[in-house]
Amino acid sequence: MTTARLTGVWAPVITPFTRELAPDPGRFVRHCRWLLDHGCRGLAVFGTNSEANSLTVEERIDLLEALVQDGVPAGSLMPGTGCCALPDTVRLTAHAVKLGCGGVLMLPPFYYKGLSDEGLYRSFVEVIERVGDPRLRVYLYHIPPVAQVPIPLAVIERLLRTHSRTVVGIKDSSGDWANTKAVLDAFAASGFEVFAGSEAFLLQNMRHGGVGCITATGNVNPAAIDHLYRHWQAPEADRMQAEVSATRAVLQQFPMISALKATVAHYAQDPEWGTVRPPLVELGPEDARRLAGELGQRGFDMPGLGTLGDPRPASEVRSRQGGVT
Amino acid sequence: MTTARLTGVWAPVITPFTRELAPDPGRFVRHCRWLLDHGCRGLAVFGTNSEANSLTVEERIDLLEALVQDGVPAGSLMPGTGCCALPDTVRLTAHAVKLGCGGVLMLPPFYYKGLSDEGLYRSFVEVIERVGDPRLRVYLYHIPPVAQVPIPLAVIERLLRTHSRTVVGIKDSSGDWANTKAVLDAFAASGFEVFAGSEAFLLQNMRHGGVGCITATGNVNPAAIDHLYRHWQAPEADRMQAEVSATRAVLQQFPMISALKATVAHYAQDPEWGTVRPPLVELGPEDARRLAGELGQRGFDMPGLGTLGDPRPASEVRSRQGGVT
Repeated sequence: MTTARLTGVWAPVITPFTRELAPDPGRFVRHCRWLLDHGCRGLAVFGTNSEANSLTVEERIDLLEALVQDGVPAGSLMPGTGCCALPDTVRLTAHAVKLGCGGVLMLPPFYYKGLSDEGLYRSFVEVIERVGDPRLRVYLYHIPPVAQVPIPLAVIERLLRTHSRTVVGIKDSSGDWANTKAVLDAFAASGFEVFAGSEAFLLQNMRHGGVGCITATGNVNPAAIDHLYRHWQAPEADRMQAEVSATRAVLQQFPMISALKATVAHYAQDPEWGTVRPPLVELGPEDARRLAGELGQRGFDMPGLGTLGDPRPASEVRSRQGGVT
Repeated sequence: MTTARLTGVWAPVITPFTRELAPDPGRFVRHCRWLLDHGCRGLAVFGTNSEANSLTVEERIDLLEALVQDGVPAGSLMPGTGCCALPDTVRLTAHAVKLGCGGVLMLPPFYYKGLSDEGLYRSFVEVIERVGDPRLRVYLYHIPPVAQVPIPLAVIERLLRTHSRTVVGIKDSSGDWANTKAVLDAFAASGFEVFAGSEAFLLQNMRHGGVGCITATGNVNPAAIDHLYRHWQAPEADRMQAEVSATRAVLQQFPMISALKATVAHYAQDPEWGTVRPPLVELGPEDARRLAGELGQRGFDMPGLGTLGDPRPASEVRSRQGGVT
């Protein structure tokens, strides 16, 4: 893994499934390329919005290898590797390091609730030491609304005392600006890389020493969010923030993952993209029409997404698009 | 799988780990045999108290096969098979059916929160249909305090409408008697098998049409709980209930899994049994001494447990104990 800082807008890439609920590497690779071509600095594949925990360890490994084999730069990948079982987390993390990924985004083990700080600390340290590779860069994944297992400041502080070369950042998906602010105040000055977990907090995050955001809606609206990221110090930044937040609000009327997939299905004219694995449920036709209608009224578009439906292998699509990217 | 009803006291068997955090099939098989010899009607291996979600799919498969190969009757096994990822749940469930297990205890997918009834229903149905084996018997695992994903009555009702031959019971670990009572009132009369998730509710459960309990403390106190189960209609049942609940209260002063393991470590004189996988933390020496002291004051014992430390293979131990069991 590179030691270069990761910054900017990253997407927790939605994972396409066939109607039979199998992961679809072709659509996955094409969507990843589209994201990198349209504003994403990197891809936090296998995040919450990727339905990562609905995938087996082997499915994640296969999808990650499909990306790298297709030529997606490993340094722009930050796969989610945190599972409930220590050996699964070790296996996925070691695999990501071996491929040269820019970092890994690590959930805490999330089955048991009310964990002690000691248990949580040991969980991360045990993974780091078992992987035992100096190239490893861990980004902690704090998402209490879903995981229901927070990563308290005291645990971050202890990890930074003992493993500061390895534990280099966080994605804060608490939705609680006070927590993000506390993390920034405590650790950003020493180089700890704080990603907001949503573009709704991007401007605030940048103004307080953060490095970017890893956001669900990066899957569909990366250019506008990247524009805000690159111009966060411009006079019109607040207006740009309001604009991307308004697009987010349209999507947030629906369950987010299903809404993202319905949006890609709509703009790619590829209905199969709408498929989700249980326990999630795809957007119904009426909701999908309403979502597309409201996005259309805002002038929203996903230019070039039609190629997502292209039946040819991703490598061919890529070489055809070589001049464009 | 047999179609015979499962009843009585079942233990969610604690999973022994070596100091290096590897599962230990020898200690596991010996503890399972001790439980079956001392009051457990069956073993709900790979439950919450088994640290099941801290095990990989392969580790669970290997441990289950070790039990069956050692001669533990498959019909007295109800392995936990519910994972976050559909293919993992299908794989574990199909494996359990193939081995002839008496049933499976199925958690809902537990990463995403706030699931719709439709998504939850689909999760179970998709597993049942993909396993596609008429021998499958599913016991739903309702444990909202940990999984944070409840199984509402409406979902049970729908499953019973469409898959009543397969979905045959529930373990209710809500800790909420009102919920257990509602499940009993709605479904017990039609043969739905309701296990209380703790012996604290065993007597109430039996009095309202339940079939037994699947309880953590069954790992250490199976004989007394089984005695209550067998004599729940006796005049002294309330006194027996108070007695087993008092023993439970001693253990509940500490994190339950670590306390159970410390108890087995103490009575087996086998300190390695105290090992847990992160994110859990083993009981400290002072807590372990206090726990043993308080259990001792109650006259608590685990007779015959010394063999757990026996270094010989489980098969040899078993043949030596043949006359006893």
